[in-house]
Amino acid sequence: MEMTLKSLSVLTGATLRGDPEIAIRGVATLQDARPGDITFLANQRYRSCLADTRASAVILSAEHAEACPIACLVTDNPYLAHARVLTAFHPQPPVASGVDPSSVVEPSASVAASASVGPGCYIGADVVIGENVEIGPGCVLLRGAVVGRDSRLVASVTLGHETRLGERCLIHPGAVIGSDGFGLANDDGAWVKVPQVGRAILGDDVEIGSCSSVDRGAIGDTVLEDGVKIDSQVHVAHNVQIGRHTAIAGCAAIAGSSKVGAYCTIAGGAGITGHVELTDHVHVSGVTSVTRSIREPGLYTGTVPAMEHGVWLKNFARLRQLDDMARRIRKLEKALADLRSDETPSQ
Amino acid sequence: MEMTLKSLSVLTGATLRGDPEIAIRGVATLQDARPGDITFLANQRYRSCLADTRASAVILSAEHAEACPIACLVTDNPYLAHARVLTAFHPQPPVASGVDPSSVVEPSASVAASASVGPGCYIGADVVIGENVEIGPGCVLLRGAVVGRDSRLVASVTLGHETRLGERCLIHPGAVIGSDGFGLANDDGAWVKVPQVGRAILGDDVEIGSCSSVDRGAIGDTVLEDGVKIDSQVHVAHNVQIGRHTAIAGCAAIAGSSKVGAYCTIAGGAGITGHVELTDHVHVSGVTSVTRSIREPGLYTGTVPAMEHGVWLKNFARLRQLDDMARRIRKLEKALADLRSDETPSQ
Amino acid sequence: MEMTLKSLSVLTGATLRGDPEIAIRGVATLQDARPGDITFLANQRYRSCLADTRASAVILSAEHAEACPIACLVTDNPYLAHARVLTAFHPQPPVASGVDPSSVVEPSASVAASASVGPGCYIGADVVIGENVEIGPGCVLLRGAVVGRDSRLVASVTLGHETRLGERCLIHPGAVIGSDGFGLANDDGAWVKVPQVGRAILGDDVEIGSCSSVDRGAIGDTVLEDGVKIDSQVHVAHNVQIGRHTAIAGCAAIAGSSKVGAYCTIAGGAGITGHVELTDHVHVSGVTSVTRSIREPGLYTGTVPAMEHGVWLKNFARLRQLDDMARRIRKLEKALADLRSDETPSQ
Repeated sequence: MEMTLKSLSVLTGATLRGDPEIAIRGVATLQDARPGDITFLANQRYRSCLADTRASAVILSAEHAEACPIACLVTDNPYLAHARVLTAFHPQPPVASGVDPSSVVEPSASVAASASVGPGCYIGADVVIGENVEIGPGCVLLRGAVVGRDSRLVASVTLGHETRLGERCLIHPGAVIGSDGFGLANDDGAWVKVPQVGRAILGDDVEIGSCSSVDRGAIGDTVLEDGVKIDSQVHVAHNVQIGRHTAIAGCAAIAGSSKVGAYCTIAGGAGITGHVELTDHVHVSGVTSVTRSIREPGLYTGTVPAMEHGVWLKNFARLRQLDDMARRIRKLEKALADLRSDETPSQ
Repeated sequence: MEMTLKSLSVLTGATLRGDPEIAIRGVATLQDARPGDITFLANQRYRSCLADTRASAVILSAEHAEACPIACLVTDNPYLAHARVLTAFHPQPPVASGVDPSSVVEPSASVAASASVGPGCYIGADVVIGENVEIGPGCVLLRGAVVGRDSRLVASVTLGHETRLGERCLIHPGAVIGSDGFGLANDDGAWVKVPQVGRAILGDDVEIGSCSSVDRGAIGDTVLEDGVKIDSQVHVAHNVQIGRHTAIAGCAAIAGSSKVGAYCTIAGGAGITGHVELTDHVHVSGVTSVTRSIREPGLYTGTVPAMEHGVWLKNFARLRQLDDMARRIRKLEKALADLRSDETPSQ
Repeated sequence: MEMTLKSLSVLTGATLRGDPEIAIRGVATLQDARPGDITFLANQRYRSCLADTRASAVILSAEHAEACPIACLVTDNPYLAHARVLTAFHPQPPVASGVDPSSVVEPSASVAASASVGPGCYIGADVVIGENVEIGPGCVLLRGAVVGRDSRLVASVTLGHETRLGERCLIHPGAVIGSDGFGLANDDGAWVKVPQVGRAILGDDVEIGSCSSVDRGAIGDTVLEDGVKIDSQVHVAHNVQIGRHTAIAGCAAIAGSSKVGAYCTIAGGAGITGHVELTDHVHVSGVTSVTRSIREPGLYTGTVPAMEHGVWLKNFARLRQLDDMARRIRKLEKALADLRSDETPSQ
């Protein structure tokens, strides 16, 4: 595939500087780009690579345009423009519609004519698969699951019964959506299962990463609104609600019945405890535990940074003495104040 | 389905207040319930919803019965009673016994006549599947695995060779039980695999959540006793032993050779280091690291709560100064004591 | 199987003490061993078990040989010798070559004659499977994946398109290698997917545990060098590079574009943030967050140890007062110094 720089400028809405007829044949990083590639500068960290790139053109913001030795596309959001160019150069390979004969489809399931069901799948009773949906190899859709049009289950995805996916969803291998949540009642020490009779409901344009779990609701549903993006190895527990366009990075977890607002970001390894509420535009740092509701937008952090082991050993034993330390500081302050007031008359 | 309030009172052993002939057709939360539903009050958090519920009846404890405007079932454990009612209203749909023709069953495997093996499964050599077992679609049982009667593998479950499940176990999609543990010997920098020749042994009534891993033993077995309940995304490493009726929430991890007692609860994201022992009735809070054995029952915590980023930035840099701070407090106390004793003679 | 102690001494290069003709029929722990077994002492923790073992022989280091009441194999690295003996006693059962008729293999895929593809697999277009490879039941290999000779995918493994595995790799059930990384560009609040066009490239002798995710690169590849060992439930994000013979334990996570050196160990639950670099021979303790690059070899820790809940409650509220405490200590020191200098002239 080959596109002119001009056509890429139209595609991205960016301002072109340089020869509009330059032929672009691929996208690469500043360091790896070769002639014929377009590259991008979206992270200040890589700014110094600009001078030496072998790319034919670069996508960048106005502030770097002056320093740019080659043709460029100037835009407020170079990373977004790069995503659009990359998408143009890497169209999803078309998949033939129809059901692979190795798959088992229950008679009451409905598979749209334009949809594709790959090899080794199971499509349960009353499942509904919309137009242009691609169900990759090895997927299991239990009874009553619904997959909205243009969605794609890459491979090895499992949808629990009655799970609902909106349109243009993208679900990666190993993800399990709509499995039972962890509901247990205690009967004199032993646990009795609380049937999980709610569903997992995903809006449009939701992406779920590999090996992630989105559990079904207990009573009532687990809901991921439009545009929610979830990385690999994430756990969304029962009855969680996640607002639109919130992104959750790898290994994060949202415990049961919590509500995360819209336009939030939850960084990798972070955890939100159960039964709390995060308002819109809350950003949680990596490996941070949110233990109570957050009502103000902003960035919240509780990460404990690694240190040399000896430094840790010496200091972290003090964590259980913090209160004592604080009380002793208070006592010292008081004693010192007393001492000073004792002195005053003696002067 | 419809049941009288009286029959639900018999089912749960609860005391009925109100008309015993009220017809109940479903279960819902206090807020969502409609006429014909029974609801429950099991969490003080939702107490205020009692006055406005549209439910026909409510399950609650004696302390709330007076304030209840509608018919009710009074019991010491409303959450347990609600679980029993929910179970009655949501019986597991019956599954036809027999092996789906799309599945592959090795000749030496034994599948009980009343068991069901869904589509796309693989049942390895010498596997034994008990009466009334349901193996859902897409499951893989490697050689010699044993599944006790009335157990259910929902879908897409993998059992390693020689894995043993007791009766009435429930295993959710994506779970892998009896895969190799992480055993490595170091040979001058390079790692040599230590064969993992133990097994994973699960007792009766064990539940394992989606995408969880219970690794087989190295030498000797990994053992989960009767009634152990494990949520999604949990890791139980090789040679771990977990006592009966212990519950482990999402994303928790138990490292190799550790032993967790009976009737423990390990909250979400918590981690137990390797080669330690927790006695019975230990409760570990969310995102807490247990780094040594615990010999006394009780609640243990090490959660670092999230804070506004600026507050974190200012304070957490001090973590590596704690020991210095503690020493300086001690020095101040000494200096102040010296100062005071200096003063005494001068008075 | 039966081997003489002499043959095991040859196999391991250990020095034999005792009767070389002792027949060994199995391997067991010090506590569980019975006559006919060989056992090992590799962890000081179990030293006291040596006196009472019923084993016929023991593998141990020179320092324990004197105290050993039975025949022994003396070696500098007993754990390694035990791994070799265990491997000899537990050879991988041979698998018949050929493709199970229940699997679907695209015409353009190449499967070596000596390779085995188990039941219910999907082998995509242009996939290449090397000599003696074993693809267990329920695996999905998407287009263009390459599996080097003598590698083994145990069962239920998914390889994304163009994923490359070297020779002698071992991949456990539920692992997903080469799925999309988490690449998102923000378009005025909504997320736009950044196509993930790199690959996941694994060297020789790489092992990946159950339910782990190794994501493909965004632009450029995710690379695991020779001998990298990864436990269960681990997340390796896009464009990560991991040096040879580095081992990563359960539930650890390496965020995007980070580079871990060779001969490192990352303990369970640890997390490495994105875009950082760890030099060779770095060891990260359990549940430790590495938030910046590490340029010096050594052990790094940030684990917060669990404590009794009451102790935690009292002390951890102080975490947000640390800076204030440090400033007050400084102020006290100054005030005390002033007080003393005031005194000096009065003496």
